[in-house]
Amino acid sequence: VRKQWNTISILGVGLIGGSIGAAICQRKIAKKVVGIGRSAARLRQAKKIGAVTSTTTQLERGVAEADLVIVCTPSDQVAEHVLRVSQVCAPNTLITDAGSVKGKIVSQVERTIGSKACFIGSHPLAGSEKTGCQYSDADLLVDRVVVVTPMRRTDQRQLAEIEKFWHLLGAQVIQMTPAAHDRTLATTSHLPHVVASALAAATPAHDLPCTATGWRDTTRIAAGDAELWRQILLGNRSHVLKSLDRFEKVLNSIRQAIEQDHGGQLRKTLATGKKIRDLVAD
Amino acid sequence: VRKQWNTISILGVGLIGGSIGAAICQRKIAKKVVGIGRSAARLRQAKKIGAVTSTTTQLERGVAEADLVIVCTPSDQVAEHVLRVSQVCAPNTLITDAGSVKGKIVSQVERTIGSKACFIGSHPLAGSEKTGCQYSDADLLVDRVVVVTPMRRTDQRQLAEIEKFWHLLGAQVIQMTPAAHDRTLATTSHLPHVVASALAAATPAHDLPCTATGWRDTTRIAAGDAELWRQILLGNRSHVLKSLDRFEKVLNSIRQAIEQDHGGQLRKTLATGKKIRDLVAD
Repeated sequence: VRKQWNTISILGVGLIGGSIGAAICQRKIAKKVVGIGRSAARLRQAKKIGAVTSTTTQLERGVAEADLVIVCTPSDQVAEHVLRVSQVCAPNTLITDAGSVKGKIVSQVERTIGSKACFIGSHPLAGSEKTGCQYSDADLLVDRVVVVTPMRRTDQRQLAEIEKFWHLLGAQVIQMTPAAHDRTLATTSHLPHVVASALAAATPAHDLPCTATGWRDTTRIAAGDAELWRQILLGNRSHVLKSLDRFEKVLNSIRQAIEQDHGGQLRKTLATGKKIRDLVAD
Repeated sequence: VRKQWNTISILGVGLIGGSIGAAICQRKIAKKVVGIGRSAARLRQAKKIGAVTSTTTQLERGVAEADLVIVCTPSDQVAEHVLRVSQVCAPNTLITDAGSVKGKIVSQVERTIGSKACFIGSHPLAGSEKTGCQYSDADLLVDRVVVVTPMRRTDQRQLAEIEKFWHLLGAQVIQMTPAAHDRTLATTSHLPHVVASALAAATPAHDLPCTATGWRDTTRIAAGDAELWRQILLGNRSHVLKSLDRFEKVLNSIRQAIEQDHGGQLRKTLATGKKIRDLVAD
């Protein structure tokens, strides 16, 4: 598997696309990094901060020489963009993405993509409540996890190439089916967003002077872009609702313990939460 | 109001008591800082890290020369400890505390304390999911808020002394009634703890490898001590339950929007959460 690529193209140079581009440039993983997007101003900024080496607003030109294309557009647009890339790229081009929901994307791509291009879904488990390539971070993926979701017909050599690419950016790679990914991320990413948003939305503005690090940590991701998260939550509806069921069951047991002044039961549930949280680093 | 005290005694040298002591020592706010506690080993450690200048396991000796006593023991014990301090300290000694629930403490103290000592409740809105004076931080209160809860019969000059003390530690001071404090903190501190604990407890351990900064931020405070939080949540039951009602109402509106695939409603609630969160710094 290759340690260097000639040309990698990134479609969508926001926080994730910009961070991946900056990491490729800093680590010299590709000779050329082409940023593709609709906004010439945003592309200029991406080039200025060193996230890409050249830019274009024309998809066809942007992917013409690419060995690897990474689609970093919002969740709802990924499948369509992968399809469009596959129609104009060279036959040996690999395509991956950074979408947060995989079942919908992979099945749409599987239905529509020709056999001429190879798509393997990826989801880097890193990000920020911030948006825009001005917040790019070349180390965003260092020690993070990237989930890759190969399909039945995925070529093992091409899968190894994609996995190697993420390793070169400093990430660990986990293989999952699209369904297992969506089920797991509903619990570890999408549900926390729902909970953080609800907590922030349930806080009257006049109480904010009495918030401290606890409220701030617990609600931080609520500052994420509402439209991006609408797409993610609706794109993974059934799994998110199941995770929400499980959360509400635990929440209800805490409510009952408080209502009934039942210290033993309350402490037990708090201790369970602590035990799980203590399994993970800061 | 004084800028320096002769002797300040701290009852309970955990993370909060240790941090307050370390700040007093570093900022030279008192000539002597006496640590009082049950465990000689813990007191030795507090002295070693510079959180106190002397130690004792005997309450009466510990408060004999104190101009100010700060009770930093767990919530459920504060009222009793304030009472005990008031029975043995000099007539002009000020007493405050660092308890997270104020209504219960202040009314218990009001019922039992004699007129010989002055108690004014305080709640520094700072802390950590960690416990123990090894995690003390002399800057824990810098730019934080301390809520003080004067009673009807509180002497204004003594209130000014207590407020000045917290200012000297770098904090801002907000005056509230005990009831207003408990109502507000139910929303800004106690509810977030319930939500973070429930979220952590609802996460299967096998899903943890797929957690990233979102889950980690949102659940961080769930690592807090279960017994301390049992005391806080049950000590502020009615306000916590009201805050939980409000949270569940918002959560339910998100659930309905996801169930009904209602993108407009979902985005609206997410945007409300973002708007509130954006009012507060990182």
